[in-house]
Amino acid sequence: MKKLINDPKNVVMESVEGFGRAHADLVTVNPDPLYVVRKDPPREGKVGLVSGGGSGHEPLHAGFVGRGMLDAAVPGPVFTSPTPDAIIPATAAVDAGAGVVHIVKNYTGDVLNFEAAAEMAQAEGSTVRQVLVNDDVAVEDSLYTAGRRGVAGTVLVEKIAGAAAERGDDLEAVVAVAERVVANVRSMGVALMACTVPHAGDPSFDLRDDEIEIGIGIHGEPGRRRGKLEPADAITGHLLQPVIDDLGLSSGEQVLLFVNGMGGTPLSELYIVYRAAAALLDRTGVSIARSLVGNYTTSLEMQGASATVLRCDDEMLTLWDEPVRTAALRWGV
Amino acid sequence: MKKLINDPKNVVMESVEGFGRAHADLVTVNPDPLYVVRKDPPREGKVGLVSGGGSGHEPLHAGFVGRGMLDAAVPGPVFTSPTPDAIIPATAAVDAGAGVVHIVKNYTGDVLNFEAAAEMAQAEGSTVRQVLVNDDVAVEDSLYTAGRRGVAGTVLVEKIAGAAAERGDDLEAVVAVAERVVANVRSMGVALMACTVPHAGDPSFDLRDDEIEIGIGIHGEPGRRRGKLEPADAITGHLLQPVIDDLGLSSGEQVLLFVNGMGGTPLSELYIVYRAAAALLDRTGVSIARSLVGNYTTSLEMQGASATVLRCDDEMLTLWDEPVRTAALRWGV
Repeated sequence: MKKLINDPKNVVMESVEGFGRAHADLVTVNPDPLYVVRKDPPREGKVGLVSGGGSGHEPLHAGFVGRGMLDAAVPGPVFTSPTPDAIIPATAAVDAGAGVVHIVKNYTGDVLNFEAAAEMAQAEGSTVRQVLVNDDVAVEDSLYTAGRRGVAGTVLVEKIAGAAAERGDDLEAVVAVAERVVANVRSMGVALMACTVPHAGDPSFDLRDDEIEIGIGIHGEPGRRRGKLEPADAITGHLLQPVIDDLGLSSGEQVLLFVNGMGGTPLSELYIVYRAAAALLDRTGVSIARSLVGNYTTSLEMQGASATVLRCDDEMLTLWDEPVRTAALRWGV
Repeated sequence: MKKLINDPKNVVMESVEGFGRAHADLVTVNPDPLYVVRKDPPREGKVGLVSGGGSGHEPLHAGFVGRGMLDAAVPGPVFTSPTPDAIIPATAAVDAGAGVVHIVKNYTGDVLNFEAAAEMAQAEGSTVRQVLVNDDVAVEDSLYTAGRRGVAGTVLVEKIAGAAAERGDDLEAVVAVAERVVANVRSMGVALMACTVPHAGDPSFDLRDDEIEIGIGIHGEPGRRRGKLEPADAITGHLLQPVIDDLGLSSGEQVLLFVNGMGGTPLSELYIVYRAAAALLDRTGVSIARSLVGNYTTSLEMQGASATVLRCDDEMLTLWDEPVRTAALRWGV
């Protein structure tokens, strides 16, 4: 295992410490229990947004803490859910009297830990609602999951719900727009090479030199099938067509197209995938209203990419365009 | 070779096409000869900024075209300089009567091609000045280079000179601040794993499972030495101490600290390097005024990182903070 780390046991803590120091203008890190909150204190009457999950998907979620997006992120150990003892104080820290939304990727560990935390936070007087993201069309039920997995679509839920909360929408309205994004966003990914979890020391799965895994999960969980390496245009079709079909997209609709890197694939290749995805949407008669390309929901140094499509209404576009100021996504401010 | 590409011959063109489509609000791509210019036409009397070089270092340079940074970028083939036939029209396209600055990384091919282009552009009536970036302290002269190589420090030159041009500084002033950044910025990098150039098909060098290359170049050129894999804190010291020494930094000075990923290393590890670098600067008594962490000057999917330090005066900080709106660096707008 070759990594720029010190002791594998300290990877998450040291990384979050570095993150907190580099972005001290945006966030504050609470070291024990570990969570990251916005630097500016919660604004009275603003709905609080909290997300979290296993580490190893950076910049998800701490990279999206800041004005117009998340109020707090709770990083667990690598590929392992955080526990209620960290989720509860993070929730309390961003509760400004208007309720708190937990944005949770649909993995059994995350769902149970966030549910338990929500119950305890409610017993302490907070109003908490959970929004479950399950955008991955590759598999129904899987390792770690009942139902579909939550993957890169989570970034879009966090941005759009974050903008709604920032402009002063109430709890029901923030939950409603988040649920509408969840209902209209779908993703699918591919791996060319596996990643290595630091405390494990070996790659989480093996792919032969000419082999790829279509429908990979962001923890390296099995996808739909293994196949031979093909040209990027063909691979992009394998990812995007099931997304288009599942959404039931038809000519004349508008979408946000998001090509996400798994961490170890160069940006230049993500743009080749974007090009192929845009051409396929052109042929479907679907118009691309907004785009996002980059490493936003990763799987350590895994090589691969995912394609995410969000069917957009005008309110989603308005909220997408609102200013955001986080370490990983920033515009307008 | 496992890559998300189609025909290796078309990698640069297809990637830039995807880039142009994804960022059509920011840039226009001229396909033949290939260059990328700002969407908004050059503002009368604004100094034009052009950079370029071999592809494979994305987002450098096209990712930095836009308001407050570059006016044009000229991507060559992978790891190969662009030629005057593309640099000349890119220069003409951004010449608004106040002169054009070529920001060139110090590699022999780039220097010669940009010099030839500048001569021909001047013969056609443009005023062109060249600023050479040579921030890499790892080696004096090397493969492809007379003198030091230009690496990640180039991003800081482009941002600060771009802000000066955007606010209306004249040619001499833009060149002067760019030269001042060059004089005060130093970098050094490390590779854990090599990258594979698409048209070559094999890794550009071999590292054993327990081996790293200290002082690596961004084309995989040899650095200072090979050594055993060490903890991130020790490796960071090997990169940063020569940078601190070469700059002659002393207690009380202020810097911009930039930890750059080579493309295949996860963001979480870059923050571990940042943490170690910040601690070393603390011990030196140097204060970190600004920070940048991410994949900005890459070497395809190479695993590794570099540390860049810029000794900052107040004007550089002011220009750094000015709004920028490009695909890869954006704030304030």
